[in-house]
Amino acid sequence: MSEFTMAEIVSLAKMRGIVFPGSEIYDGLANSWDYGPLGVEMKNNVKKAWWKKFVQESPYNVGLDAAILMNPKTWVASGHVGGFNDPLVDCKACKSRFRADKLIADYFFEKGEDVIVDAWSNEKMMSFIRENKIVCPECGKLDYTDIRQFNLMFKTFQGVNEDTASEIFLRPETAQGIFVNFKNVQRTARKKIPFGIAQVGKSFRNEITPGNFIFRTREFEQMELEFFCEPGTDMEWFNFWKEFCKKWLFDLGMKDNNIRFRDHEKEELSHYSNATTDVEFRFPFGWGELWGIADRTDFDLTQHQTHSGKDMRYTNPVTNEKYIPYCIEPSLGADRVFLAFLCNAMEKEEITNGDKTEERNVMRIHPFLSAYKAAVLPLSKKLSEKATEIFEILSKHFMIEYDEAGSIGKRYRRQDEIGTPFCVTVDFDTLDDQCVTLRDRDTMNQVRVPIDEVVHYIATRIDF
Amino acid sequence: MSEFTMAEIVSLAKMRGIVFPGSEIYDGLANSWDYGPLGVEMKNNVKKAWWKKFVQESPYNVGLDAAILMNPKTWVASGHVGGFNDPLVDCKACKSRFRADKLIADYFFEKGEDVIVDAWSNEKMMSFIRENKIVCPECGKLDYTDIRQFNLMFKTFQGVNEDTASEIFLRPETAQGIFVNFKNVQRTARKKIPFGIAQVGKSFRNEITPGNFIFRTREFEQMELEFFCEPGTDMEWFNFWKEFCKKWLFDLGMKDNNIRFRDHEKEELSHYSNATTDVEFRFPFGWGELWGIADRTDFDLTQHQTHSGKDMRYTNPVTNEKYIPYCIEPSLGADRVFLAFLCNAMEKEEITNGDKTEERNVMRIHPFLSAYKAAVLPLSKKLSEKATEIFEILSKHFMIEYDEAGSIGKRYRRQDEIGTPFCVTVDFDTLDDQCVTLRDRDTMNQVRVPIDEVVHYIATRIDF
Repeated sequence: MSEFTMAEIVSLAKMRGIVFPGSEIYDGLANSWDYGPLGVEMKNNVKKAWWKKFVQESPYNVGLDAAILMNPKTWVASGHVGGFNDPLVDCKACKSRFRADKLIADYFFEKGEDVIVDAWSNEKMMSFIRENKIVCPECGKLDYTDIRQFNLMFKTFQGVNEDTASEIFLRPETAQGIFVNFKNVQRTARKKIPFGIAQVGKSFRNEITPGNFIFRTREFEQMELEFFCEPGTDMEWFNFWKEFCKKWLFDLGMKDNNIRFRDHEKEELSHYSNATTDVEFRFPFGWGELWGIADRTDFDLTQHQTHSGKDMRYTNPVTNEKYIPYCIEPSLGADRVFLAFLCNAMEKEEITNGDKTEERNVMRIHPFLSAYKAAVLPLSKKLSEKATEIFEILSKHFMIEYDEAGSIGKRYRRQDEIGTPFCVTVDFDTLDDQCVTLRDRDTMNQVRVPIDEVVHYIATRIDF
Repeated sequence: MSEFTMAEIVSLAKMRGIVFPGSEIYDGLANSWDYGPLGVEMKNNVKKAWWKKFVQESPYNVGLDAAILMNPKTWVASGHVGGFNDPLVDCKACKSRFRADKLIADYFFEKGEDVIVDAWSNEKMMSFIRENKIVCPECGKLDYTDIRQFNLMFKTFQGVNEDTASEIFLRPETAQGIFVNFKNVQRTARKKIPFGIAQVGKSFRNEITPGNFIFRTREFEQMELEFFCEPGTDMEWFNFWKEFCKKWLFDLGMKDNNIRFRDHEKEELSHYSNATTDVEFRFPFGWGELWGIADRTDFDLTQHQTHSGKDMRYTNPVTNEKYIPYCIEPSLGADRVFLAFLCNAMEKEEITNGDKTEERNVMRIHPFLSAYKAAVLPLSKKLSEKATEIFEILSKHFMIEYDEAGSIGKRYRRQDEIGTPFCVTVDFDTLDDQCVTLRDRDTMNQVRVPIDEVVHYIATRIDF
């Protein structure tokens, strides 16, 4: 059994209609991607799996879907207008452009040191670059411009005039849509602390260096929970959600050696955060962050209270005590975790068939996440009518593939590679005994099942 | 039985957590809206109902999820850069701003004439305004600037430089993401003509006059199908999808007198369209378009072939004949049809309770679309434990409300108003007989059902 390289994943994704390069006929748009017929189903299933556990089955949480375009004061309050920047420098000699923090981090990395540069001021970074003679990686000169802050928010203009009065931003995170609606949701859903608000949606960041397929893109989708609790109980809930997230990943088939939890050191924490843990996945290109779980204290609601002048406090219904709740934020990238499930599942497997050894690609993905739950495969085109009848029965319940082209062996391999957990083979006996053969993706075992039991057979095996 | 006014719908939506004004604590952002805990479920259910019939159960169609940010050449090819404009004029005297076509349409409307101005040139409009002395509605002067074209696409800048090289647009429709992926999808899904590609996603239009709650917003969600067929069969498929869309609406409970189909007159058609029908809903503010169903011929794929230099033709696998397919486009606004279902469902009803007459608000929405499928209501807080157990069983399958506050009558009324099809009442007998009382939203009839049959009871009654 061997794993897929990143290039193989990207190629498979394109070949099978999972993910295509965006605007490809126009030679693309810097690292943008479109989800194809299989990808859209799989990504929707990832989102469904998250919503099912974080909202539907949760006694604590409710959902929300706030707009991408928000009043720009939101981003002043959240700190994004002032602080959501990357420090840029240009080399005056060769005009190359770099992130100053990245130059310094690379310098330390080469020395084998692990220093966190995030909180350094522009002045500190520039002095350090000069003192340590960190030259331009392109031309070798030491002749930089001053550092300027580059804001990562996409700007646009609403209304008829292109003046600053109507300048708005594409949200760089979904979280603020939750914070500004805290009171509306709490009141209408009549929730008592502790409770959470969950949201799935697109965010946009004008990254200087997007890359690694769908791992880092300028347009991306988030699944965020903001969980509000009483100050003092926050570390307890922080640990609760950490365990909850872990269970979600493992229940969906994540392999133990592909996941690690990295607690942030004190100096790495944001000034308002009591604790942060990154959940990382072992991608073919290295460990990468999937989930950030942070104790954000009362920072966000306090900021919005200050900037909006609205009372963002919660009133304890028993004691009438008013306070701004603390907030635990497990924030997950939908595209990233989709990619992680894909990498986690793809295997090249040697199988022996009699005295021959063959290789098959198999996507051992949790059936809840697979694009199709079953493929209906008539052994002969003469069986189309019966097979179509079975497709119609099954497709009322699940996404079903229908394929009547090519040898049955090739059709099995195709379904293995795209992760379809069951192949439903229709043969000439089916016309008489009203049974079909169900083949299991992982074991390749086959069982004979009456047509009217197939829905139940599949349903009980794809549950999450 | 009486209907809700628009003001009552907006107020209910806010009170019950269906739709909140966007960024409300910052006094909003011109007609932007956020879906609350109930609204997000209902809108997701609308999208699910569409996907189920247009993708999952369809032998023809597959899904796609293309990026919002596309290569800007897409919008040159589609005609949006050149032609997606509103004609603006300013009154020089009072500085008011108007849409020139609107001024003329209003002029005709007052005369009781129905003239379509859409295809008029700027010159023709300005001459007409001058000749017919259409004065400024604000100050009464006849002193306009020239007409200038205002493009409705939101512009933004990708990458570090704010120059025109990196100017991109937020997509004004999801359709073009489908057209540019036509070959990728056809090849990877191995589809033969006729087949369709379906997509759900956000689009953005910088409307001069957004309004009517979530009917016309600058950020909105579309559910679009592009169905590709052989030229000459297009009118047949046009009628097929027209009937299909109609059935979808009526199967989900649309009332006959709330829906009308309006075929476009010849002079109203786009130059490339063979036929267009608008499906309109009778909103409290008047008839409004839900669904545009258009025969777009080979216009879009031909445009992309010309502008990209890529071969967009389909090869008939039997005859090897190559041709650009014709395309039928049923294009539905998700927010609009959500609002239509809400308006269609809300009723004020007089009910007699013994010799008293009471009024109740009831949302008679199709159970597939309702936010919650059932509400678990313990008659006493002493029954919390049992009721929680039942919540846990049911919530593995459906979105379930749990409510133990207030009198049972008030709790029923609340669930009626938010459209919950079943109330599951837990009483002291439940502890002995392991049965609950199920109350039907519409008939208010009650039946006693064993706990372990409730999932099945509900599942068979919410199907779509």
